[in-house]
Amino acid sequence: MTEIDVILILDLLGVFFFAMSGCLLAARKGFDIVGSLLLGSLVGLGGGVVRDLIIGIVPAAFSNPLYIVPPVLATLLVYFLFSHVERFGGLLVVFDAGGLAVFCAIGTQKALEFDLNPVSSILLGVTTAVGGGLLRDVTANEVPRIFDPQDVYAVPAFAGAALMVLLDSLGWSNVITISAVAVAVFGFRVLAWRYHWQVPLAVQGWRR
Amino acid sequence: MTEIDVILILDLLGVFFFAMSGCLLAARKGFDIVGSLLLGSLVGLGGGVVRDLIIGIVPAAFSNPLYIVPPVLATLLVYFLFSHVERFGGLLVVFDAGGLAVFCAIGTQKALEFDLNPVSSILLGVTTAVGGGLLRDVTANEVPRIFDPQDVYAVPAFAGAALMVLLDSLGWSNVITISAVAVAVFGFRVLAWRYHWQVPLAVQGWRR
Amino acid sequence: MTEIDVILILDLLGVFFFAMSGCLLAARKGFDIVGSLLLGSLVGLGGGVVRDLIIGIVPAAFSNPLYIVPPVLATLLVYFLFSHVERFGGLLVVFDAGGLAVFCAIGTQKALEFDLNPVSSILLGVTTAVGGGLLRDVTANEVPRIFDPQDVYAVPAFAGAALMVLLDSLGWSNVITISAVAVAVFGFRVLAWRYHWQVPLAVQGWRR
Repeated sequence: MTEIDVILILDLLGVFFFAMSGCLLAARKGFDIVGSLLLGSLVGLGGGVVRDLIIGIVPAAFSNPLYIVPPVLATLLVYFLFSHVERFGGLLVVFDAGGLAVFCAIGTQKALEFDLNPVSSILLGVTTAVGGGLLRDVTANEVPRIFDPQDVYAVPAFAGAALMVLLDSLGWSNVITISAVAVAVFGFRVLAWRYHWQVPLAVQGWRR
Repeated sequence: MTEIDVILILDLLGVFFFAMSGCLLAARKGFDIVGSLLLGSLVGLGGGVVRDLIIGIVPAAFSNPLYIVPPVLATLLVYFLFSHVERFGGLLVVFDAGGLAVFCAIGTQKALEFDLNPVSSILLGVTTAVGGGLLRDVTANEVPRIFDPQDVYAVPAFAGAALMVLLDSLGWSNVITISAVAVAVFGFRVLAWRYHWQVPLAVQGWRR
Repeated sequence: MTEIDVILILDLLGVFFFAMSGCLLAARKGFDIVGSLLLGSLVGLGGGVVRDLIIGIVPAAFSNPLYIVPPVLATLLVYFLFSHVERFGGLLVVFDAGGLAVFCAIGTQKALEFDLNPVSSILLGVTTAVGGGLLRDVTANEVPRIFDPQDVYAVPAFAGAALMVLLDSLGWSNVITISAVAVAVFGFRVLAWRYHWQVPLAVQGWRR
């Protein structure tokens, strides 16, 4: 298996994680199965499409038919496996964290490959990571999780993207370090959610 | 009249249909005439702009000044013809169905022309078809019609895009078959709305 | 200082104005400082990214690391300077008007440079000008200011873009006229807001 195959598999995994978060939200909001497929596709593929448009290539989701598999799989899994809904909220956050983690690492890596400067690469990594979830929440008329002051959402993506740039500048960017960064971002995000970490508000001294 | 001219006229017709749906929604929400023009333009041109960006060309709406005509026309028609508002809802759905139908056929056709694979062509056809309406509803702070479980919205677009790919693979793709597919999608969509067809919910066995 | 430097500085100024409007809205909605940075970046950079994607170039925000400075600056300014919030609303409108004015002039200018036709250049100027604010309001779940019938928002952008096309066709397009158009659009917009100018509603004869 070449390095490129592994990157493709990681990318598809990220699509699947975000698609699951979209389909779970669709289920919670009482959408039908087609709405579930559409929201899953939008969330799973949206961040990567924006990333590829900015880089200036035909989006992977529209050049490789494999990319339709994860959203279809997520729609079917949610349809057949979830007849009860008690734990939707937690599961949604965990799958969302998986998508955030994978897309942050791969988005930054792809930016560096296409010779964007380090600052822009971090920006594109974060954009890819938070883009899908932002589209999901805006489309489903939810307050975007990214703006929830009770939650630390984007900081793990910033940290992961910066780490990828550092590793790349040291010549240590490969499949193993990319996967390690994704795992670290995932852990950071899930811990931040589980233990209610917070960052200061937009205005100093404002009381919550 | 060449084949390309007919495709252009069809595309402008799709822009007009979606622009009408945008201007009617603007009227219903009490926007002013400039907001009507902006929402009509966004809905009419948005889906095609996304389509062309993904294909990787300068969007038709920004290379051909003719594309501004349908939104202006829709704004003026809504301004002068609708002094009463009782039938806005139904008209909005019918115009929206027209846009969906035309853009689904033309979007898929354009994807095939630019050598996207069949699966991606269907995906792009559906994206073009549902994109404008999604932008309309999200922008105007409505729950997107696409996610309404009481309504069958995207299925006709999926069916139409798949049919276009089939016709193309048989070498039967031309102006007449494109128009026929658009008419069929329009009929399917309007019937589904009129007779309250439904598809299963995102989760099996969930009671409505 | 070359002409290109001045255009870059103007563009960064536009990013800063819109970023301020985003960070002020983030403060008003009680977002945390990371949400403030993200919303400021989205509003400041969003319109220009859409503009550059439509023209078909790698977005300036992702090729020049300087573009990250205005959003960071805006986030810090709002964090340290605003401990009281009484005048947020007015300030937000003024900064938003600054972004609208600068982006309308530069967006139209950039479209003309890349040989778009006059009609499309006006359309792109208006898109660039209103795009950031639209993204801001939709993302933060507000009714977009652009659609507020009590307010004249897009007309100054239309007027400014048309004026830029006129000046360009006369061969009078340079840094001074671009700046003058931006100042005029800013004044028009602020006056319209201050004195509650209005345009007719989307439907003739509809009572407010």
